[in-house]
Amino acid sequence: MAEAADNPRLVIDAEAAAGAIASVLRDQHPADVAAAIEDLPADKLRDVLLELPADMSADVLMDLDEHARVAMLEELPVSEIAAIAAELPSDDAADVIGSLGDERREDVLAALAADDRRDVERLLAYTDESAGGIMASELVFVSEDDTVDRAIDVLRAAAEEVEGVHYVYVTDARRRLVGVVPLQAAALARPGTKVSDVMLTDVVTVTTGMDQEDVAEVFRKYDLVAVPVVDPSGVLIGRITVDDIIDVIHEEAEEDISLMAGTREEELHEDSALKVSRIRLPWLVIGALGGLGSATVMHFFQLSLERVLALAFFIPVITAMGGNVGLQTSTIIVRSMRTEHGVSGEASKRLVREWRIALTNAVILGVSVHLIVGLWLGDWRLAAVVGGSLAAVILVAATLGTVMPFALKRVGVDPAVAQGPFVTTLNDIIGILVYLGLASAFIERLA
Amino acid sequence: MAEAADNPRLVIDAEAAAGAIASVLRDQHPADVAAAIEDLPADKLRDVLLELPADMSADVLMDLDEHARVAMLEELPVSEIAAIAAELPSDDAADVIGSLGDERREDVLAALAADDRRDVERLLAYTDESAGGIMASELVFVSEDDTVDRAIDVLRAAAEEVEGVHYVYVTDARRRLVGVVPLQAAALARPGTKVSDVMLTDVVTVTTGMDQEDVAEVFRKYDLVAVPVVDPSGVLIGRITVDDIIDVIHEEAEEDISLMAGTREEELHEDSALKVSRIRLPWLVIGALGGLGSATVMHFFQLSLERVLALAFFIPVITAMGGNVGLQTSTIIVRSMRTEHGVSGEASKRLVREWRIALTNAVILGVSVHLIVGLWLGDWRLAAVVGGSLAAVILVAATLGTVMPFALKRVGVDPAVAQGPFVTTLNDIIGILVYLGLASAFIERLA
Repeated sequence: MAEAADNPRLVIDAEAAAGAIASVLRDQHPADVAAAIEDLPADKLRDVLLELPADMSADVLMDLDEHARVAMLEELPVSEIAAIAAELPSDDAADVIGSLGDERREDVLAALAADDRRDVERLLAYTDESAGGIMASELVFVSEDDTVDRAIDVLRAAAEEVEGVHYVYVTDARRRLVGVVPLQAAALARPGTKVSDVMLTDVVTVTTGMDQEDVAEVFRKYDLVAVPVVDPSGVLIGRITVDDIIDVIHEEAEEDISLMAGTREEELHEDSALKVSRIRLPWLVIGALGGLGSATVMHFFQLSLERVLALAFFIPVITAMGGNVGLQTSTIIVRSMRTEHGVSGEASKRLVREWRIALTNAVILGVSVHLIVGLWLGDWRLAAVVGGSLAAVILVAATLGTVMPFALKRVGVDPAVAQGPFVTTLNDIIGILVYLGLASAFIERLA
Repeated sequence: MAEAADNPRLVIDAEAAAGAIASVLRDQHPADVAAAIEDLPADKLRDVLLELPADMSADVLMDLDEHARVAMLEELPVSEIAAIAAELPSDDAADVIGSLGDERREDVLAALAADDRRDVERLLAYTDESAGGIMASELVFVSEDDTVDRAIDVLRAAAEEVEGVHYVYVTDARRRLVGVVPLQAAALARPGTKVSDVMLTDVVTVTTGMDQEDVAEVFRKYDLVAVPVVDPSGVLIGRITVDDIIDVIHEEAEEDISLMAGTREEELHEDSALKVSRIRLPWLVIGALGGLGSATVMHFFQLSLERVLALAFFIPVITAMGGNVGLQTSTIIVRSMRTEHGVSGEASKRLVREWRIALTNAVILGVSVHLIVGLWLGDWRLAAVVGGSLAAVILVAATLGTVMPFALKRVGVDPAVAQGPFVTTLNDIIGILVYLGLASAFIERLA
């Protein structure tokens, strides 16, 4: 009690505080509320959320970052999660319920109304990163024989449940998509106009199995705000809105940078040094093992190094060049695989391109380093070995940087892995091997 | 002629071909047309574009990737560019005209209608990467005293000129924004309803000077499809739509990855090895100079290396660790500066966090490498030097990775530069300095 008295914050009653916070927050945008409270401990977060009106707490929940959301859901009773899920669009409800443990997931599903449960169960069956996994089931659609007035009525009936509608979809008797009516066209049409007279029939659609990255590319290419999702026979089963696509694009960019940097943004929410270390260590271990591999190579060439110690001085130049050239090459290859713009075609065609570029750089850098080393140490034979190996290492690194993404893709691994530490480490070892191999051969011959 | 006869493609009359291509393309989506033709040489691209109807060629032009668009614009006469610009929304017209050389820019502006010219000139005055630089001037707005019917009429009058309208903006007598009416609400309102009864007044806006990256964050946070742009006194002057924001997010991610990889996606459109080499060489030169810096350090410690050659073996371990830890740290610091999520606060607070993580990794990796080197070479004194320096290098790299982004930000440089080759190269040199410095001190003492 003495401690509490010394620190007045500790004597505030937790429940009263949550109520007070909630009443201040009630008039704010849910995204602002989420930003204001997401760094609270999970149990305090829950207390605030429980004080907010149900529809608002559902919106706030979805605006929390994923880490805070998952932590907070663990603190919520099943009945509350079910109540919130009932307020959410089906895609968000599926995300929330999908992030629960198996047992609680079943309990929440059992507590939902039958049609909500069916929607969520259907969505949970799709792979997370597919169009099916990010679509919502709520749809506003009419028949091609209907009038625009009828479309407006359907829209009005759905207004409570479906937010952010930009298109009314038009389907045939078997619910196959035949057109879309942009809201703007619906609002402007004279009463009595038939839907088929104002609908657009050249509709961009995606299928449930499409990878979310490809869906994002469709949005970007056609400048969409929403896309209908159809099954293989053209039956309309959902829609994806652009706000979810913005999240996808962020996630994918995040993933690429994480692969290159060897850590994940997630760790920002982690206070324990041990847990962050567990995220970062794998990359460091790869680097350390690679370094020990390089040490083994140098150990093997010990005799040459003893004879000409200065050979060792230039190992950092060799590994830096191998690493940089390898990363430049693999990054460009991976990007070109993604965008399919500019350079494209077979691996062999791109390899020729990369070789031409690497040869240019190899000549420029090889000659420059040759001159610098020669002028510095006055040993032109050593200078030739360093400059020549540097050029060779640049060509090898460019080859590896081109071939690896294609090889990874063939075995079903994300080509972007080639931008990570594996290839850089491999380049270090191969670079030193090439350098000391060439150097030894020269020194033997010239000795 | 013999050559042409041998290769039938060469005898096709270029103009007839462009016409034939254009007639096939006329029914396609402009984005598909752009994708199909953007790899053609600029003059052929121009021929096809000139055969398409004016509104379609304007759309296709905007769907070309930037590289193809700029190349093609150089082939177009001023009068054609002005005709296309007149078909485009003001933001696209400003992009097109802004990408021309000074002289042609003036000529195109002079050829535009007075109000189009005024719009474009106003937009060109804003910085490229600001809200003003990406907004369009076309707006659908009504007064707060108007009825919804009037809003629909205004929308109808504007339908030709303004595409993709999602909101009707509501302004007061001095054109200050007071609310927005979502199209859905306008479509559903009973005739005669006053705009002020259905408008939302809690509007998210951005100001002209806001950085495009921050605008993108606003879209992401509030799940928007369009945002009104206001001047400092709240007067409505433009709007930004989500399709432009998707391009911004792509660009920014691209920029980050380019900084890390040391090359730019642009090079994919470049066939000349010399020109690509010019893009990549600066990074390689930094790496090479850094490597030569490392060589100088090793040269300085030549005596120690001669006495214990095995010290050289572990240089690659030291540089790999310094590079990886530095990159992990700087990446996380840069990310946390951007998102303002999770960890935040002063540089000193984050430095403490990074030190705790680095200390954990340093102990684990230092002890492991100590054991491996000791068991391998049987020299436990050398093993202690390698393990101890490795730990020291990890701490130094973490410090540099934390401090650099803050330092760069303070001097007005993009903190993301800290993820590039400068810091990795600096880490290499400092790492070798620390390692050989410690090693020499130990060897002297123990010798």
